[in-house]
Amino acid sequence: MTVKHSDIDLTAFIRDVPDFPRPGILFKDITPLLREPAALRAVIDRLTEACAQWPVDLVVAAEARGFLLGPALAIRLAAGFAPVRKPGKLPAETRAVEYELEYGTNALQIHTDAVTDGQRVLLVDDLLATGGTMAATTQLVEASGGYVVGFAFIIELAFLKGRRKLPADKPIVSLIQY
Amino acid sequence: MTVKHSDIDLTAFIRDVPDFPRPGILFKDITPLLREPAALRAVIDRLTEACAQWPVDLVVAAEARGFLLGPALAIRLAAGFAPVRKPGKLPAETRAVEYELEYGTNALQIHTDAVTDGQRVLLVDDLLATGGTMAATTQLVEASGGYVVGFAFIIELAFLKGRRKLPADKPIVSLIQY
Repeated sequence: MTVKHSDIDLTAFIRDVPDFPRPGILFKDITPLLREPAALRAVIDRLTEACAQWPVDLVVAAEARGFLLGPALAIRLAAGFAPVRKPGKLPAETRAVEYELEYGTNALQIHTDAVTDGQRVLLVDDLLATGGTMAATTQLVEASGGYVVGFAFIIELAFLKGRRKLPADKPIVSLIQY
Repeated sequence: MTVKHSDIDLTAFIRDVPDFPRPGILFKDITPLLREPAALRAVIDRLTEACAQWPVDLVVAAEARGFLLGPALAIRLAAGFAPVRKPGKLPAETRAVEYELEYGTNALQIHTDAVTDGQRVLLVDDLLATGGTMAATTQLVEASGGYVVGFAFIIELAFLKGRRKLPADKPIVSLIQY
């Protein structure tokens, strides 16, 4: 049977995994969605439609799951792509940001030449949870001279209020909310 | 100026970074290529053209840089995508493979339900170096009941002879050879 992707209920392809990565956490697993051609295509189509209103020069996403969406979406928006990575992974000159986790701190880096001054940048990830990673990525882009036009996610865990960590004046797209 | 991507010389967008990640290694950095919209698009267009001859049900790639290409190529081939990750990163039931590095060993995992029996699987990565990661990924796919139809890379470091680690009867596509 050919499934028309415009009719697809994406939530049917999100798997709940209890107690991952820690006891008490209900993990939203997107791998069943990626595996189904019509669902994968629908995700990129719907994110493209939602973001096509913003002029976008560059899409930025953090490793590893952000990489699954970033370049695919960038191509559809006729934009470039720049990766944000954990320390020591990017080969050329980088700028870094540290941010707090529940226990301890984390750091992310971007190449100093990743963003051209004044570029309009769309930030993408599979999931908006507490917003820590995305807030840090926003700092990296703005420190690089980029103008953040908005944020796009497949899933938003609304009960974690991650939106509050993102700039209040920027649009946020999420295809599925819990 | 609008660059026609069919004319693009991709090698112009590969940056040599000396002594990364270790002294004596000349790292081929693809971030300048990802950043340029026409070059990013040309990569996916050319990989799609090269692989369109093979019926492909599923594209498989290993984190992190393989994720940059896998879903974008899967969509163009009307296939699904399944990720291969380092231990502890995939939330559901996994199968694992260990492989030897120059010093010590490494392990990779795939979800046990990632590949359906008999699916035709294309394996993708940004770079073919010694072939260790791709040989391990091949083992994971075949142990999962998948049929590997071929391999696709942006860059092949031919002097490292990574092809010898891959099955001799499978086609290998690489857009740039050094």
